[in-house]
Amino acid sequence: MLKLYYSPGACALASHIAFEEAGADYESVKIDLKAGEQKAPDYLAINPAGVTPALVTDEGVLTENAVIMSWIADLHPDRNLVPADAFQRARMDAFNGWAAASLHPALSRLMFSRPPLEGDARDAALKAVKDKLALAEQHLLKGPFVMGDQHTVADGYLSVFTRWCRLAGILDGDAYPKLNTHLDAVQARPAVQRALKAQGIEPVGG
Amino acid sequence: MLKLYYSPGACALASHIAFEEAGADYESVKIDLKAGEQKAPDYLAINPAGVTPALVTDEGVLTENAVIMSWIADLHPDRNLVPADAFQRARMDAFNGWAAASLHPALSRLMFSRPPLEGDARDAALKAVKDKLALAEQHLLKGPFVMGDQHTVADGYLSVFTRWCRLAGILDGDAYPKLNTHLDAVQARPAVQRALKAQGIEPVGG
Ligand SMILES: N[C@@H](CCC(=O)N[C@@H](CS)C(=O)NCC(=O)O)C(=O)O
Ligand SMILES: N[C@@H](CCC(=O)N[C@@H](CS)C(=O)NCC(=O)O)C(=O)O
Repeated sequence: MLKLYYSPGACALASHIAFEEAGADYESVKIDLKAGEQKAPDYLAINPAGVTPALVTDEGVLTENAVIMSWIADLHPDRNLVPADAFQRARMDAFNGWAAASLHPALSRLMFSRPPLEGDARDAALKAVKDKLALAEQHLLKGPFVMGDQHTVADGYLSVFTRWCRLAGILDGDAYPKLNTHLDAVQARPAVQRALKAQGIEPVGG
Repeated sequence: MLKLYYSPGACALASHIAFEEAGADYESVKIDLKAGEQKAPDYLAINPAGVTPALVTDEGVLTENAVIMSWIADLHPDRNLVPADAFQRARMDAFNGWAAASLHPALSRLMFSRPPLEGDARDAALKAVKDKLALAEQHLLKGPFVMGDQHTVADGYLSVFTRWCRLAGILDGDAYPKLNTHLDAVQARPAVQRALKAQGIEPVGG
């Protein structure tokens, strides 16, 4: 049985959504980041990086949302969660790579720095986030879905980050109309609602 | 013809190495980051994110080292640059994902922040880098190669970052013996030497 370690509302929500979209047979295990459970010996034995998500499989452990989402999509080809064309698939991987390596770290710095950022450091971090949201709005999100007409795992992934931005009050409707419409559409999907419910969290209205 | 946009010694070196390891037919085009060429309209038309690498193909543009390396490896299956087993391949992707989303941003913050970090901010950034190097040393790098006995594109990728660390004087031989041996082994490969030479840069001794 696949076991997905997640923390409510954190980035593993993307993998959780992918499991629900895939109709996968899995268990989910909650890790309390505020209580530091991700750095406890039990969890470090699963993922020595001490972060969520981690997916325990019969063959071993997988980490990184982009990899876990791709893996589960390939196990459920009937759900069409990734482009069939190899080049478009690589483009989707590149979007997910950008979200993981560029958008996510910028958001973490702005939102989760301890102690919280102040003054110039906060202004610079906010500007970095806004630049990345603008890049997604103007170039990366083809619309209505990330890859255009086909819904893929990239959509759940993007929605996790735009959900954080909406919670933080920075997903400005005038600046980012496409990102707002996208988040609403993703949150309306039954699989996404099941994943949110499983994590004990709510959709966030615009 | 494939066209790889790179900047000497920067992270696109990983893709450049993968092209040489694959024996691929490609052209490389230099982008001068210090002169800001990555933000010039011509280049933004290729990669609106304004970063290198970008790979121009007949089907469109690919970005993200991890994706470009995988793509070129799949075009040259005879070179065995990725694990044949699907689960091990996903593990390699997870390593590359960690390097892109965790190691690379930590190094960029320490080494390339403008203005340069000072005092507590620099100490914190250096500690974050050391924690990640320790994770690679103790857990992620199986040895002799990242994935164990098989050389893969993950090795060139890791070497780019350990090369930066050695240049910065922080790839301590006592703390990171495996990473040092790995970098030496990767730099000794003829394909790596060709990629370095093509970029006009040198291997870095320990
Ligand atoms: N690149 C990783 C990032 C994983 C990550 O940073 N997870 C965060 C939650 S959003 C975490 O568990 N942080 C806990 C900590 O750093 O202590 C991925 O996409 O899976
Ligand atoms: N996640 C991207 C990172 C690309 C990246 O940040 N490239 C740097 C060089 S190491 C760059 O071009 N920076 C120029 C800039 O930010 O202006 C990848 O792995 O390809």
